[in-house]
Amino acid sequence: MLHAPTLMGVAVDVAVFTVQKGELHVLLLRMKRAPFTGKWALPGGRIGAAESVEDAAARELAEKTGLAKVYLEQLYTFSRPDRDPQGRCISVAHLALIPPTAQLRTTDKYSAIGWFPAERLPPLAFDHRAIAGYAVKRLRAKLAYTNVAYSLLDERFTLGELQRVYEAILGRPLDARNFRRRIREIDLVEETGELRTGRAHRPARLFRFAHRKPVEVAVLT
Amino acid sequence: MLHAPTLMGVAVDVAVFTVQKGELHVLLLRMKRAPFTGKWALPGGRIGAAESVEDAAARELAEKTGLAKVYLEQLYTFSRPDRDPQGRCISVAHLALIPPTAQLRTTDKYSAIGWFPAERLPPLAFDHRAIAGYAVKRLRAKLAYTNVAYSLLDERFTLGELQRVYEAILGRPLDARNFRRRIREIDLVEETGELRTGRAHRPARLFRFAHRKPVEVAVLT
Repeated sequence: MLHAPTLMGVAVDVAVFTVQKGELHVLLLRMKRAPFTGKWALPGGRIGAAESVEDAAARELAEKTGLAKVYLEQLYTFSRPDRDPQGRCISVAHLALIPPTAQLRTTDKYSAIGWFPAERLPPLAFDHRAIAGYAVKRLRAKLAYTNVAYSLLDERFTLGELQRVYEAILGRPLDARNFRRRIREIDLVEETGELRTGRAHRPARLFRFAHRKPVEVAVLT
Repeated sequence: MLHAPTLMGVAVDVAVFTVQKGELHVLLLRMKRAPFTGKWALPGGRIGAAESVEDAAARELAEKTGLAKVYLEQLYTFSRPDRDPQGRCISVAHLALIPPTAQLRTTDKYSAIGWFPAERLPPLAFDHRAIAGYAVKRLRAKLAYTNVAYSLLDERFTLGELQRVYEAILGRPLDARNFRRRIREIDLVEETGELRTGRAHRPARLFRFAHRKPVEVAVLT
């Protein structure tokens, strides 16, 4: 017997991260509409009839935060049947990373916007706590085998600044000597030939990422 | 203005891999029904109204191939608006890995089933060529920083057998000495204390994976 296939809504949600004050932060919006009025949520929304999820994620992020041309990556599709009280809707979760200098542009589609430490999130709408938790876990794992951190730093940085970004994401201190040795082994960064000078410290060499697009590090192969 | 949200179909498709005759192979089914009658496709189908995509992928794989308790991982959601000529339907693609000893159980839902070398696939239905290509790329990348190969080998194996699985997936020879050094560095496998004996070769030490569940290798952190 043939029967009509089940149709459902498809949303995109974006976990936007930045490193501020030595801590990993997530961008949240405070919702205006029922059933989650007053709750915080990741930026996102339904995909259109003629739109891919990648296009929808970039559009939602631009519409709700003004962020464009950011590192945006599809993460995982969340599909628990009861995740949306308004009816069946799956969510294709994305990860976005922005440097601390990126500027937000807000709209009146929500009542507030803010950065929250990834370890201390307020109660979230839908299954957004699970999505944010998964995104943190993936980001930590990706640090180990990709150059993903490039999108969280400005173009030139000291090795100390790079290490502090890694420590902020991992939530624990790293041994400086081991960190520098491994960074060199996998050719993650290269010297710019410039020095940062300042009154308080002796001059520090400035580095840049060897690649400013996603690259994976081959360990075994 | 509020308007009715767009609803669409959601499918799961599974790229099932094994290594046979020194080559990576993909499992394909030959379709019976229009509009792709006679074309080959990855096993998969629509998700049910009260089913997560993970449950749907396991169910479709079991129904169409008899494979159960296999390594199954969500890969990526494919959503080009024109990917299904029967109407808007996105596909949540999965990766499955099985050892060469796994037995298939077939059904009459398709007209043929077969293993195809990943580098020489026949014309495929929908966007399944793109899905299969992406799955091969992810599998190759994951070899470099995870223990994913455990699900392609039997429980005990020689380092030569392990290397041949890596070479089959990567499609190129590896230097045995470097390969063994790196395998040891990241504690991927451990000795069983047993030897494989045979007439043609001198006895070879048998190894097993240190973990038989997904583990990521920390390079930088």
